[in-house]
Amino acid sequence: MFYAPQLNPESQEFILNEEESKHCVRVLRKQVGDLIELLDGKGGGYVAEITAANPKKCSLRITRYIFHPPTVSVHLAVAPTKNMDRMEWLVEKATELGCTHVSFLQSKRTERSTVNLERLTKIAVAAMKQSKRTYLPRLDAPVPLADFVRSFPGGWVAHCLDQEKRFEFNTSIERRILIGPEGDFTEEEIATALSNGYKAISLGEARLRTETAALKSVMMLELLGE
Amino acid sequence: MFYAPQLNPESQEFILNEEESKHCVRVLRKQVGDLIELLDGKGGGYVAEITAANPKKCSLRITRYIFHPPTVSVHLAVAPTKNMDRMEWLVEKATELGCTHVSFLQSKRTERSTVNLERLTKIAVAAMKQSKRTYLPRLDAPVPLADFVRSFPGGWVAHCLDQEKRFEFNTSIERRILIGPEGDFTEEEIATALSNGYKAISLGEARLRTETAALKSVMMLELLGE
Repeated sequence: MFYAPQLNPESQEFILNEEESKHCVRVLRKQVGDLIELLDGKGGGYVAEITAANPKKCSLRITRYIFHPPTVSVHLAVAPTKNMDRMEWLVEKATELGCTHVSFLQSKRTERSTVNLERLTKIAVAAMKQSKRTYLPRLDAPVPLADFVRSFPGGWVAHCLDQEKRFEFNTSIERRILIGPEGDFTEEEIATALSNGYKAISLGEARLRTETAALKSVMMLELLGE
Repeated sequence: MFYAPQLNPESQEFILNEEESKHCVRVLRKQVGDLIELLDGKGGGYVAEITAANPKKCSLRITRYIFHPPTVSVHLAVAPTKNMDRMEWLVEKATELGCTHVSFLQSKRTERSTVNLERLTKIAVAAMKQSKRTYLPRLDAPVPLADFVRSFPGGWVAHCLDQEKRFEFNTSIERRILIGPEGDFTEEEIATALSNGYKAISLGEARLRTETAALKSVMMLELLGE
């Protein structure tokens, strides 16, 4: 399985980048005439025949395009943890579980202001290939919570404050959820979310780590009926 | 929060072990007369007053016992992955999510035959404290699948073979699930499970990694109604 975001339904020919060419020709030992599968990360699957097994630029002729209708879209917005490993496995797991969009939030108590999107994208691509998903989640760099909820109004906000909360997700609201930092969102941040069409939700009694709460909510939103 | 499995409802006095004593007296700077909370990992919560702030053996007088009724029990039996990190985070996350029993399975394609239960227990204890859960999951060393299903008949088996499967968990069957190795269970192993009261279940279209499938099934079983 190869990832080629540049492909589109009209593509007739394609050249794998150096890394993928090497993998295809040197590692998988593919030869002229062999068929390989590619994904564009937007639901498109492609069958291609190798026309030149060049380990630096392997040429392909697209023989078939299959469109996979979009799965339900789940948008996770999470305050990145200090320990990046936890965010890396979150992105891997969220991709496996069908999350379609991951945004990072800057909130008052967020412990890190930047994330390595390039590295996270590599992890998401590997998870997409590995789990045979056809959609690569969109990954967005950290933005202030207030800006985020204005750009993406409507969704759910999980927090630990003792305020009125729903205990079950429902589909009357966007499948989008805000997960705060270890120190939780501030009352002001929660108010900002609520005033932008978000509803407070409880993920249960236990105090979950940021990445666990994020993964649990992604799974619950993905399991919701239409 | 301190973990003291030796405590029981009748306990009146207790001495923290050296590690916990050091943490209590040196790190948390607790003094005589201060109150601390302890958990026995079996649903018991204890409030105790420090009677001697000794950093090697801190003495306590139990002033209160609170029993937390058992939560729904979820039993996960998983074939350990070659990469132990993946099992370590699985145990951490499963504990946070309320899994009550984790067993490891030896199957034909299992990539490792032993797990470090001591290390996994430390991880589970930390996750229990961190998530304010009152139950420590029981962790069992690897046993052959056939022995396991005979000792624990009834439950669900997740596999990738193209056979008849349920697509929804229901509570007519034990909240217990078998998750196979990366290479999946063999047909024979699946037959052994089915003949011991297990039902085949699908966790969805995507091909999930062992630990992701395990975590997803724990969450789904935990979310099931009574």
